[in-house]
Amino acid sequence: MILDIINKKRLGKELTYKELDTIFNGYLNGDVLDYQMASLLMAICINGMSDEEIFALTKIFIDSGDILDFSSVDGIKVDKHSTGGIGDKTTLVIAPIVASLGVPVIKMSGRGLGYTGGTIDKLESIPGYRVNLKDKEIIHQVKDIGIVITGQTACLVPMDKAIYALRDVTATVSSIPLIASSIMSKKIASGADKILIDVKVGKGALLKTKEDAKKLSELMVKIGEFYQKEVRTIISDMNTPLGRAIGNGLEVKEAISVLKGEEKSNPFVDLCYDLASEMVSMGKNISKKDAYNQVLQSIKDGSAYNKFLELVSYQKGDINGIKISQKKLDILAPSSGIVKRIDALEIGKLSLALGAGKETLNDKIDYSVGVYLHKLVGDKVKEGDVLATLYMGNKKVDVNYDKIFTIDM
Amino acid sequence: MILDIINKKRLGKELTYKELDTIFNGYLNGDVLDYQMASLLMAICINGMSDEEIFALTKIFIDSGDILDFSSVDGIKVDKHSTGGIGDKTTLVIAPIVASLGVPVIKMSGRGLGYTGGTIDKLESIPGYRVNLKDKEIIHQVKDIGIVITGQTACLVPMDKAIYALRDVTATVSSIPLIASSIMSKKIASGADKILIDVKVGKGALLKTKEDAKKLSELMVKIGEFYQKEVRTIISDMNTPLGRAIGNGLEVKEAISVLKGEEKSNPFVDLCYDLASEMVSMGKNISKKDAYNQVLQSIKDGSAYNKFLELVSYQKGDINGIKISQKKLDILAPSSGIVKRIDALEIGKLSLALGAGKETLNDKIDYSVGVYLHKLVGDKVKEGDVLATLYMGNKKVDVNYDKIFTIDM
Repeated sequence: MILDIINKKRLGKELTYKELDTIFNGYLNGDVLDYQMASLLMAICINGMSDEEIFALTKIFIDSGDILDFSSVDGIKVDKHSTGGIGDKTTLVIAPIVASLGVPVIKMSGRGLGYTGGTIDKLESIPGYRVNLKDKEIIHQVKDIGIVITGQTACLVPMDKAIYALRDVTATVSSIPLIASSIMSKKIASGADKILIDVKVGKGALLKTKEDAKKLSELMVKIGEFYQKEVRTIISDMNTPLGRAIGNGLEVKEAISVLKGEEKSNPFVDLCYDLASEMVSMGKNISKKDAYNQVLQSIKDGSAYNKFLELVSYQKGDINGIKISQKKLDILAPSSGIVKRIDALEIGKLSLALGAGKETLNDKIDYSVGVYLHKLVGDKVKEGDVLATLYMGNKKVDVNYDKIFTIDM
Repeated sequence: MILDIINKKRLGKELTYKELDTIFNGYLNGDVLDYQMASLLMAICINGMSDEEIFALTKIFIDSGDILDFSSVDGIKVDKHSTGGIGDKTTLVIAPIVASLGVPVIKMSGRGLGYTGGTIDKLESIPGYRVNLKDKEIIHQVKDIGIVITGQTACLVPMDKAIYALRDVTATVSSIPLIASSIMSKKIASGADKILIDVKVGKGALLKTKEDAKKLSELMVKIGEFYQKEVRTIISDMNTPLGRAIGNGLEVKEAISVLKGEEKSNPFVDLCYDLASEMVSMGKNISKKDAYNQVLQSIKDGSAYNKFLELVSYQKGDINGIKISQKKLDILAPSSGIVKRIDALEIGKLSLALGAGKETLNDKIDYSVGVYLHKLVGDKVKEGDVLATLYMGNKKVDVNYDKIFTIDM
């Protein structure tokens, strides 16, 4: 029976809800073995899935765990998700902006995968910050201050956890149907009313082409329609790292700079404003232009930054306790010119080598290390200018800087 | 590194010898895990392999074990292989014919997979018959009487054993490149000078279409050319069971009838003559027509049957000891007409249910059970005629005879 189902997908045929249910729940309860699921996942990767199969799989994922209920919280709850990229700390900026404008934010974030830490790892660079709130605490806090950023509860889509771990070690991560089911099942189970997805595309992202990013976007909107939830997507570049800081503590500090309005317009700041405006537009049912003006105002009048301070303090974090390594190494421009390219993937590998991410599940993250980019793409540099500073920990790194920076004469 | 290799095949790219070597030998030594190999095998099933990849994989398979050397045995050693089917006992007929005509036969056969027993299982229905001869015994015997039929030695392509076991439980059996590498590596490692392959096609076979059978044939000929070994193939039907008997002891008895010349022309007898003629033609470098005449003569003058008796007695078997169950059940024709179809797959399932094959590795084969077909496709029958007899053991069977026989009015 199990082999018949795998065989059907091998031949590129459509699986029924019952067949998907049998094999995926069979995997969760141990009747289907790792190698059988690996074989099926590869067949899905190559032969794809129909919309009906994807809706079915998403439902099976959602039904594997608890569905959170935040209906007792007033207002439209808008959740935001990023498909992940190097230096992506947008949640830390957007969530306080949106909450400061009266739209409740309940954000359940993940840990790092691949090269850098996830939002939860970043927040853990703030000493004391609690990332494991219980459902009751979440509801109490969002009613009290309008914002929560916490880790995912154990019972949120356990099937996704199991399948993701297997995909990670079987080269079956890059499947648009599997990515869509994974993201959307978690967002829907998290009880959001509306969902905004930041789909990253480029060298430092899971998706390498705009075409794939579009496909994934359209698919997630369709899944949203199936569940009668509004889904909007933004496709954003991940050839270049996002912002100046890569590394957990450094990224929190950069987020603070943006919230304080200290950072001039750059692609990261612009993306934060864009995403925040979209969320406010969705949460308040207003035009994006009106939402954008409110976002700018919340930065200008300090309410966004104050909301961030309120959040950290409510979750017991000590904002002054963030430690950044004092062991610094400057990377100098080898020639004068204009910065043409900063390679996101190479920066990711460098930050992983420094200890900002995990190479294996047993690794410990060093929150104090990372890379800070003094120059961004498009900036003019003179020979000898500091392009970037490495904040180093105990790990030895061996990097080819030529691969990271491309300077045009 | 391993994931990069799997990913490359996921994208349909060609793997290098080094990449194939890394991942396949990695699997054999435990560095590559079951689920990773399963994922790769599925990618190979769907995306295929180039000729260069198949040559490389065959070499890696061969190099995983011993290569047998029968160069001390005079004459051209011709090996024969069947891709397997219901009621396929051709080896038991062909090998004695060919040996009786002076072409040395060293046949290392396998056990059953799927619905029925393999040649070795069939021979074990002869009490005492030794199936685990050592290399030295094989050489001694073939020099003495010109024929050996024994089991495969443990060191013959161990990688094939490991990969086959995994393919069997991950729905990755039906891959032409993997089938070709598996068969050809074993034949080449077995030290044959020339190789004849009987490629089965139809409902009761691994390959369902003539197109696939042709592809597999061409591929095996190419692998043979790569190793400078002549390979010939015969594509033969497996929609209908081969011959009258299905079940281990019954099949040995049917082989004896054919060797004695008691069985008139039917598809099984014709195939035996065809395969034997091909082997004699290859082994003696004579035309197939001349070989065919010699084959007919060897049946007529009893030398083929005598060679069979010599073989069984040399390997300590007692030909009179074969037991057939006395618990019989006749299947009667429900109407008069002509037998249009006898479904090989359904007969296979029936014989498995009776106990002639193994459903799990721990099952024991009942050599005395099986099915005997009194009527073959094309035969006229009257209502109430005995179509077939079931020889039953201790297992209860529940069969839909309508699915097995189709009679046209």
